[in-house]
Amino acid sequence: MTDPKTTPIYHTSADAFHCDFTHQLCIGHLGNALLNASDMHSTARNFGMTYLNTMNKTWVLSRLAIELEDIPVEHDKFVIETWVESAMRYFTKRDWALYSEDGTKVFGYAKSIWAMIDTQTREPQDIFFINDGKIKDYIYPEKECPIKDVSRVKTPEMTEYTEFKVMYNDLDVNRHLNSMKYLDHLMDTFPIDYLRDNQVKRVEIAYVAEGHWGDTIRIYHHADGDQHYFRLARKEAEGETELGRVLMSFKAKQRAVAE
Amino acid sequence: MTDPKTTPIYHTSADAFHCDFTHQLCIGHLGNALLNASDMHSTARNFGMTYLNTMNKTWVLSRLAIELEDIPVEHDKFVIETWVESAMRYFTKRDWALYSEDGTKVFGYAKSIWAMIDTQTREPQDIFFINDGKIKDYIYPEKECPIKDVSRVKTPEMTEYTEFKVMYNDLDVNRHLNSMKYLDHLMDTFPIDYLRDNQVKRVEIAYVAEGHWGDTIRIYHHADGDQHYFRLARKEAEGETELGRVLMSFKAKQRAVAE
Repeated sequence: MTDPKTTPIYHTSADAFHCDFTHQLCIGHLGNALLNASDMHSTARNFGMTYLNTMNKTWVLSRLAIELEDIPVEHDKFVIETWVESAMRYFTKRDWALYSEDGTKVFGYAKSIWAMIDTQTREPQDIFFINDGKIKDYIYPEKECPIKDVSRVKTPEMTEYTEFKVMYNDLDVNRHLNSMKYLDHLMDTFPIDYLRDNQVKRVEIAYVAEGHWGDTIRIYHHADGDQHYFRLARKEAEGETELGRVLMSFKAKQRAVAE
Repeated sequence: MTDPKTTPIYHTSADAFHCDFTHQLCIGHLGNALLNASDMHSTARNFGMTYLNTMNKTWVLSRLAIELEDIPVEHDKFVIETWVESAMRYFTKRDWALYSEDGTKVFGYAKSIWAMIDTQTREPQDIFFINDGKIKDYIYPEKECPIKDVSRVKTPEMTEYTEFKVMYNDLDVNRHLNSMKYLDHLMDTFPIDYLRDNQVKRVEIAYVAEGHWGDTIRIYHHADGDQHYFRLARKEAEGETELGRVLMSFKAKQRAVAE
């Protein structure tokens, strides 16, 4: 840990079996790499999930934006750097940069907002309570993350939906629908030819409630050109509960795809 | 590459967001790590998929057995070693060992049989044709892989099934249902409490045909205590085509699970 506030913490590569049929790293794997990097960063500084779990607390992701100039392809080596942009009593902002191992190419950036909650009561917890507010020592507002802030994600009225059921592989260590599985399930709703020709440019997610094993989740969708709005909602005995809202923007693939 | 035949090639860890709700590495992630290690091993020796693709050839997995004494848990660092056990004209055997980074603990072993095929005709190809049979220099039969050989996997008559549809995230770079996604989908069929209390001890898969995007796959299942037989078959306009047969054995979890 050279820089106390940030360090290219996650060295990995777009392994063949984490890539999709266009030989690009799957967005869900890319997103999980961001989360794993932040888990390593926070664990090394004593405010990671495992430590919080001993006090019946955990981090929950409230908002996330990922913007990708390019996406790693099969065998590309890349690193992820992550740092805390700001911290308030109930929320902290975390940013990421993702670039090639040799540092010559930036793949993209990401921004997020996290809350700390009590795992039993689900109530928000005072972040500064942990280690006498030590997290303040790691705040790095001057570090540049040159993408637009993550919004509350406003979606239009939507009535059409597909459904999926939350299964074992969808769950994270907190027994909730893994935040990145939202993206996997959304990607699965696109026509395969659209994903052959286009790639994610920016994705914005506002997380509202947590999904659990056995839940039936409705994915509402509305397309405005290459802007795709989604709303995820759990089907209830009567009505539904909103889990999250998502805006995904796509652009034409720049690199030729070997098939 | 110190040892020309084998080397602990894949250094990784059970990252938090690759773990399941019992904090163990998901079996699909573990399996993909094996495949990624073999891709690195073969790529470094000039018989990897990317090189074969330039000649319209690729590797296909024919049989696989994974036997796990224990499963890495959240933050465990581990390495994977892989080597070629034997090579014949149309088939090659590949083995793996998976152990802790410090080498003190063996998590398990795996064995497999691979064929090389032409990506257009799907016909088996002569493995020794590649680089004048250079693969022979890497055969390492004296290296120990102390688990039972992978069988053809005989399953009893089965009539009950669940179904899933092959989606974008199920596909590998060859545009086929990823070999490890078989396991993910099988794991998803278990009652969640069974997976809380038990873990995979051995899994054996005989791959028969390839799944494609949009296919509806039937999972036939029969349990004999903690031995679970599965047969995967693609639903056709009339009848079905067998994709594979699987035997999974479970055992009670040894380590207490934090929830």
